[in-house]
Amino acid sequence: MGGFDVEAFALAMRPWRSIPRLWIAYSGGCDSTVLLHAAVTLGLPVSALHVDHGLRPESVDWALHCRARCLALGVPLRVESVTVRAGGEGLEAAARKARYRVYAAVLAPGECIATAHHADDQAETVLLRILRGTGIDGLAGIPAERELGEGRLIRPLLGFCRAELAAYAACHELSWIDDPANRCDRHDRSFLREHVVPLLETRWSGLAQRLTRLAHHADTASMLTERWARRQLAALGDDPCILTVAAVAEFDEAERLQLLRSWIRRQGRRPPPARRLSQGLVDLLRAAPDRQPALVWADGCIRRYRGRLYLLPPHLPQPPAVGLPWDMRQPLNVPGLGRLEARVSVGRGLRAQCLRQAPVEVRFRQGGERMCLRGHARPHALKRLLQERGVPPWVRERLPLIFIGHELAAVADFLLAEPFIARPTEPGVELCWRFAATQDRAYPAL
Amino acid sequence: MGGFDVEAFALAMRPWRSIPRLWIAYSGGCDSTVLLHAAVTLGLPVSALHVDHGLRPESVDWALHCRARCLALGVPLRVESVTVRAGGEGLEAAARKARYRVYAAVLAPGECIATAHHADDQAETVLLRILRGTGIDGLAGIPAERELGEGRLIRPLLGFCRAELAAYAACHELSWIDDPANRCDRHDRSFLREHVVPLLETRWSGLAQRLTRLAHHADTASMLTERWARRQLAALGDDPCILTVAAVAEFDEAERLQLLRSWIRRQGRRPPPARRLSQGLVDLLRAAPDRQPALVWADGCIRRYRGRLYLLPPHLPQPPAVGLPWDMRQPLNVPGLGRLEARVSVGRGLRAQCLRQAPVEVRFRQGGERMCLRGHARPHALKRLLQERGVPPWVRERLPLIFIGHELAAVADFLLAEPFIARPTEPGVELCWRFAATQDRAYPAL
Repeated sequence: MGGFDVEAFALAMRPWRSIPRLWIAYSGGCDSTVLLHAAVTLGLPVSALHVDHGLRPESVDWALHCRARCLALGVPLRVESVTVRAGGEGLEAAARKARYRVYAAVLAPGECIATAHHADDQAETVLLRILRGTGIDGLAGIPAERELGEGRLIRPLLGFCRAELAAYAACHELSWIDDPANRCDRHDRSFLREHVVPLLETRWSGLAQRLTRLAHHADTASMLTERWARRQLAALGDDPCILTVAAVAEFDEAERLQLLRSWIRRQGRRPPPARRLSQGLVDLLRAAPDRQPALVWADGCIRRYRGRLYLLPPHLPQPPAVGLPWDMRQPLNVPGLGRLEARVSVGRGLRAQCLRQAPVEVRFRQGGERMCLRGHARPHALKRLLQERGVPPWVRERLPLIFIGHELAAVADFLLAEPFIARPTEPGVELCWRFAATQDRAYPAL
Repeated sequence: MGGFDVEAFALAMRPWRSIPRLWIAYSGGCDSTVLLHAAVTLGLPVSALHVDHGLRPESVDWALHCRARCLALGVPLRVESVTVRAGGEGLEAAARKARYRVYAAVLAPGECIATAHHADDQAETVLLRILRGTGIDGLAGIPAERELGEGRLIRPLLGFCRAELAAYAACHELSWIDDPANRCDRHDRSFLREHVVPLLETRWSGLAQRLTRLAHHADTASMLTERWARRQLAALGDDPCILTVAAVAEFDEAERLQLLRSWIRRQGRRPPPARRLSQGLVDLLRAAPDRQPALVWADGCIRRYRGRLYLLPPHLPQPPAVGLPWDMRQPLNVPGLGRLEARVSVGRGLRAQCLRQAPVEVRFRQGGERMCLRGHARPHALKRLLQERGVPPWVRERLPLIFIGHELAAVADFLLAEPFIARPTEPGVELCWRFAATQDRAYPAL
C-alpha cells in the first residue's frame, strides 16, 4: 500500500467513473470525512448522507457538525433520522440495519453510495468471522461492491489502511468527530483492536494485509464454486424448485452440499448451516422409499416425495377451515393460497345446468372425500386419486375442492366427477386455479 | 465431540479397517501413547515407529522409554535415528522433514502410518497459517489422509481434542514423556498456545471446533475448484505442458489463476505465490506479439512463444560449450540434455558415404550457422529456419547440430542439409534425437 491521496483514490474509483451521483455515507468520523474530502477534491458528483441513529444525546451535535462541514465543502447534505429498536440481534446490529435501509431508500437507479470501510475494517471483519465461526463465503469479508436498493453500495477505501487515511486527514487538516459507526459490534471489535491485534502484531506484523489477501482468495473460491454449482444446476432440470434424488446422489458429499446451497440461494433463500444441511441431506437421500423426509430451517424447507426434492417456504399458508360460498361470476381469492376462476365454454368443464340447480362451495380436504371419475363404475377415495397422480401431500391439502350442493364436483382444475362433466355440445364452465404468486414455487406443476 | 474411547477410535479408523499393517508414529509423548494404546486395544495389526532426532542428550532415554512401553504392550517397535541439519528453514522444519522421510521409507505398499495429530493441533495449524498468510488450500490445514511413499499417512485423531486424549491417558494410567514432536514450530506454536489462544478463548470459547470446521470448508472448496480446473484443462489440449494464450484468455482473472495453479501442480511443480502468478500472467497474456515474456519462480517457469504458454523447469540444462566427437556406432548421451542415435537405412537420412569421408562432431548453436535445404538454391541462416518451423528459442539452443567435417549436415532428427541427403537407393543413416526423460516436458513436440 503506497499511501492515500487523491490520485490513489482516483484509481480506486475507476470502476465507477461515470456515475450520475455518488452518495457518501458520512458519519462525521475520520474515515468518512477523508472519503468525502477526497471525493469532492476529485470533482465527483457528491452528495453527503448522514444517518442520525438517535442513540445518544450528542447525536444532534454530530448532525450539526456534518452540516457545517458540508457547507464549507459546498456539498449538499441529507440528514435522515431513524428509530432503532434492538431486536434479538442487539442494538448495534439493529442500528446497522436501519442505516442500510436508509442507504437503500435514498439511491436512485444508477446511483452509488460509498462507505468508508478500509483495510483494517476488512481485516477485523475477517478475523472476527474466523473467531465466531465462518465458512468460505463469510471469509470473503466485506464486498467491495454490491447491489443495494435500486443502486449500488461501493467501498473504494478497502485497499487503504486506517493509518493512511489518518495521515491524509492530518495533512489536509480535516476536522472530524469520534465516529459513531465504529461503535458497531463494539464489544467484540474493540476487544480485537485493543487486545488481540496488538498481541498478534508483536509476532506477525502485517497481519491486516494477509487477512485482506485471504479474504480475496476466499471471495474467488466462493465465486468459482458457486459458478460450478450453477452450471450443474442448469443441467439438472427446468423447474428451479425440483431436483431429482437420483441426480443429486450422483455427486459426492462435498459437491452435493455446494449444489444444494446454491440451489437454495438461487431461490432467494438463506441456506441452513452447513452441518444442518449435511445431516438433513443424508436423511433426504437415504430414508426408505415409503417415507417422506423433510429438512426444515428458518428460511426454507426441503421435502422429498417420490424421488424428487422440493424446495418450499418454511411455512406454507394454511387453507381455510370453513367452506367458501362462490357464485362463480367473480374469481374467488383464497387468501395466501390462490385464485379460482370460472370461464364459460361449450362441451368442456362442469355442466352449466348442474351449477344452476345447487349452490357452489369451495372447501379444502378434511379426509374421507370420495369421487367418481369418468370410466369408473364406483367412486374412489380422493386421497388415492391424488396419490396416483403424484400430487405431493402438502399440495393435496391446498387444492380447492368444488362442491355442488353437497357433492364433490371438481378438484381445482384437473379432476372432474362423472355426473358433473359437460357433454360435447352442452354449455359448460371451465375452472382455472392458480396458486398465489408468492407461493407459486411451493407447488410443482400438476 | 463426545469423548475419546476405543469405540470412538474404532469409528474414526473405519476408513482403514482392513490394512495389512498399521504403523504408529510413536514419539513417546501423551498423544502418540494414547494412539498406540487405543490401536493395540482395538486389535489392529500395529507396529510402532520411533524416530530419534538426536537433537537432545535425553533422546536416548526417550527411545528406551518407548522400547519398554512397547514390550509391555507386546508391540514390535522400530527405532530409526536420523541426523538433522538445519537448512534455511530452521531446525524444527528440518527435523520434521527427516521424520517424514523415515515414515515414507518404512511403509510397504498398502500399509498406513498414523500420527497422533488432534483437533487442537489442527486448530493451531489453521490459526498459524492465517496469521502467517495463506490461501484457501493452506487453510484446509492438516489433511486426515494422504499418500506417503508407497503407503498412506493417516490422522485418525483429528476429530478429538487434546483434553479428550489426556482424559483417556489418565483413565488408562498410561505413562508418557514430554512429547518432543510438539517442539515443532515451537516458538510460534507455544506463543499461540500460551498467549493467543487463552486470550481468544475468554471471548470466543469453542474456537478450536470452529477452526477445524473452517479447515473442512476450505478443504472442500479447494477440492471443488481443483476439480473444476482439471476438467477445464482436460478440454484444453493434449500436451499437458502447453496451453494456448487464446484459450487461457477466455477465462476471467480468478478462473485463470485457478486454472494455471492447477496446470502447474499437475506437472508436479509448486505454483508461485498467488500475487506473483497474477502479475506474471498479465505480462504473459498482454505483452506485444513480438515479445517473449516469461514468468520464472523457484519451482518452474512459464514462457510464451507464438501464442502458446510452455511450462518448463526453472532452469534448463546448459548445452556443452565444446563439440562432442561421435563415431555413430554407439548412441551419444549429452548429459542432462538427451540422446542421439543413428540407424542404418536405405534411401533415408544422411548419405553413408559422406560419413565415411570426414569425422562427425555434435555441437550446439553458437549463432551464425547456415544450412542449405533441399529445393533451395542458397543456404539460409539456421536461426531463420528454426523460427520458420516454430521452434521456441530455448529449444533451438538445445538441439544437437551434426557436423560432418566442418559442415552442418543435420539438426537433431528433423533438418538435413542438401548435399548430405541420401538418394533413394543409396545407403543412409537415420538420426533419432530424444530429449532426456527428466527434461522431456521442457520441449514441445517438434
